[in-house]
Amino acid sequence: MAKHQKPNANKLITTDLCIIGAGPVGLFAVFEAGLLKMRCHLIDALPQIGGQLSEIYPHKPIYDIPGYPSINAQVLIDNLLEQIKPFNPTFTFGERVEALERQADGSYHIIGNAHTEIHTQVVVIAGGLGSFEPRRPEVPRLVEFEGRGVAYMVKNPEHYRDKRVIIAGGGDSALDWTVFLSGIAKEVTLVHRSDSFRGAPDSAEKVFSLAKHGKIKLLLQSNLHRVEGNGALSHVAILDKAKKEIILEADALIPLFGLSPKLGPIAHWGLTIDKSAIAVDTVDYSTRVERIYAIGDINTYPGKLKLILCGFHEAALMAQSAFKYVHPAEKLSFKYTTVNGVNAF
Amino acid sequence: MAKHQKPNANKLITTDLCIIGAGPVGLFAVFEAGLLKMRCHLIDALPQIGGQLSEIYPHKPIYDIPGYPSINAQVLIDNLLEQIKPFNPTFTFGERVEALERQADGSYHIIGNAHTEIHTQVVVIAGGLGSFEPRRPEVPRLVEFEGRGVAYMVKNPEHYRDKRVIIAGGGDSALDWTVFLSGIAKEVTLVHRSDSFRGAPDSAEKVFSLAKHGKIKLLLQSNLHRVEGNGALSHVAILDKAKKEIILEADALIPLFGLSPKLGPIAHWGLTIDKSAIAVDTVDYSTRVERIYAIGDINTYPGKLKLILCGFHEAALMAQSAFKYVHPAEKLSFKYTTVNGVNAF
Ligand SMILES: Cc1cc2nc3c(=O)[nH]c(=O)nc-3n(C[C@H](O)[C@H](O)[C@H](O)COP(=O)(O)OP(=O)(O)OC[C@H]3O[C@@H](n4cnc5c(N)ncnc54)[C@H](O)[C@@H]3O)c2cc1C
Ligand SMILES: Cc1cc2nc3c(=O)[nH]c(=O)nc-3n(C[C@H](O)[C@H](O)[C@H](O)COP(=O)(O)OP(=O)(O)OC[C@H]3O[C@@H](n4cnc5c(N)ncnc54)[C@H](O)[C@@H]3O)c2cc1C
Repeated sequence: MAKHQKPNANKLITTDLCIIGAGPVGLFAVFEAGLLKMRCHLIDALPQIGGQLSEIYPHKPIYDIPGYPSINAQVLIDNLLEQIKPFNPTFTFGERVEALERQADGSYHIIGNAHTEIHTQVVVIAGGLGSFEPRRPEVPRLVEFEGRGVAYMVKNPEHYRDKRVIIAGGGDSALDWTVFLSGIAKEVTLVHRSDSFRGAPDSAEKVFSLAKHGKIKLLLQSNLHRVEGNGALSHVAILDKAKKEIILEADALIPLFGLSPKLGPIAHWGLTIDKSAIAVDTVDYSTRVERIYAIGDINTYPGKLKLILCGFHEAALMAQSAFKYVHPAEKLSFKYTTVNGVNAF
Repeated sequence: MAKHQKPNANKLITTDLCIIGAGPVGLFAVFEAGLLKMRCHLIDALPQIGGQLSEIYPHKPIYDIPGYPSINAQVLIDNLLEQIKPFNPTFTFGERVEALERQADGSYHIIGNAHTEIHTQVVVIAGGLGSFEPRRPEVPRLVEFEGRGVAYMVKNPEHYRDKRVIIAGGGDSALDWTVFLSGIAKEVTLVHRSDSFRGAPDSAEKVFSLAKHGKIKLLLQSNLHRVEGNGALSHVAILDKAKKEIILEADALIPLFGLSPKLGPIAHWGLTIDKSAIAVDTVDYSTRVERIYAIGDINTYPGKLKLILCGFHEAALMAQSAFKYVHPAEKLSFKYTTVNGVNAF
């Protein structure tokens, strides 16, 4: 009976390679692993695929992807997804990896902050600059209401249907979610400390127009001051430009002051950390701990360049090396894709 | 006066980086060098750009170029050419690099087998499997007539206008050049040891049809036996299937028995050679000799994979390192193309 299912029951996923980070390098690692008949599961703290490219500059052109005189960052991610399709990777989104537990046979359990558990032969850290952590405004008791009305990222807009929502911030995310949620939520208030916006001018214009027509409430030159509630968030106090306190009833508060990457729990896994990156051996981009590799922006070695094309190379050498853990009885044979094709398995 | 110009006068070319080999890796090195404001000259023994891709498998799809689920080898070369266009590289084709001469100031002169001379600050060997050397049939005195009627590759078909040409071989090159030269030469004879062809069936059909209509002479189950001439080639003797000798008057003999790559003179430049490849340091893909780098299939290091995508990475790290020789007074600053764009200079 459904009644007996624990809502937070651990979902145990089993895979050959668990790739932490679904940026371009983690994605391409699925391809290189797939050629060697290794299955992959990817887990990412962000609600979407693509790492820095999708989160920070989806619409910017990149000029140094070999063979593309110019390619839009999001298009590169889409193409990589297409390229790895034959190997059917599986994904967990919106969940940060918190812990790593070594099993008796040398394999690992990886545990996410929403209790997802992944049993894997090999761990591939492709975590980029680390997981993007929200910049938290300094508001007393804010932490107390996280997950109880306070969120720093919109994972599922439906969650806000018919709610009273307060958004804070002046960049694109704040503007875009204000516009979007104004069509879903019962009430939207946007709080911003200045009276001009950093985000795209046409988004700002939309917000001003929504405010003018009474569709949203706009509090400029204002700041978050206090949050209140009994278990769940119920009120948010704002200081307006006259330093007067305005108290609003609210079901949700979404401070959108940007994300800043943090190495986070990975820093405590016994790996060698050098300037916020994981030291690796360039023979195969392995870390000092057996079965744990680090590729892409998150690793460091003499000569390291934080470039996408370098991460691709690292992924290829990692896969050759990881093979022995996944298929210990088999001999690795190197074949060109042109000769062998890309065979799903 | 033109009269005073020596026909073989050395052409001295001056550049920042001389790249030996215009395969995919040599081409992409132009891009990485260009981002750092270094000018490139490429020299290749083959008459065309593209290395193994254009020479061996132009029409085959490659599946492991990151961001391309599939790309035709020649299209990848064309795209790389487009990508490096802003940096205006210069080229010397059909000339094999023979010698390297270190100058007093540390720079180099590179000398080709047709006397092209290149003055360069940095040498980048991107020579793949080595320069493609023709497979020479075992015919006495053949070497004596090389460049005097005997050639193993058609660099300029116009050279054969109104000449009596003998082609030997049974693959695509032999078939294609037989068809092509039949429209230009005075007389074309194709000699082949078997009576079926390895080349494309429709090319073979064209050759049979040209023979049937008397446009070419076709000698099957026949072999080259002797060459004769006084200074230049004048006669070629062929053994037919009855082991009878047939003597033909000829201005040109083109044995097309395929190309096989040879490291060649590079093996004698004082670099560390390990299994026909040049040992490099993965920090910057430098060789043991200062200012000489080796990237792509021609290098080796622990973990090396002979993959195009690995050569791209090597090119990027090489360029960062070569910068100090080309712009000794300048500080290298690392910038993303997305932020900085691709500026010609
Ligand atoms: C503005 C800008 C312009 C750029 N331009 C270029 C350019 O022109 N050319 C170029 O080559 N590079 C460029 N870069 C750099 C490029 O984006 C990075 O090299 C690339 O994103 C690295 O890919 P990655 O897969 O290693 O990591 P990322 O793209 O950073 O992805 C890592 C992923 O791992 C996730 N993650 C991290 N830790 C955890 C954890 N504990 N649990 C779960 N998930 C986790 C993160 O959420 C993230 O999604 C640019 C970067 C920026 C910011
Ligand atoms: C059939 C086949 C299928 C393949 N499939 C794939 C695949 O699917 N994926 C993949 O990544 N790779 C594949 N490869 C390998 C890929 O082609 C090579 O990794 C790639 O060509 C290496 O590029 P390069 O620029 O280092 O060298 P090359 O492409 O070999 O180019 C080197 C150039 O240097 C020139 N040269 C050498 N010595 C001299 C000299 N002394 N003077 C002047 N010129 C010189 C040569 O003439 C040549 O043109 C395949 C190879 C083959 C043969």
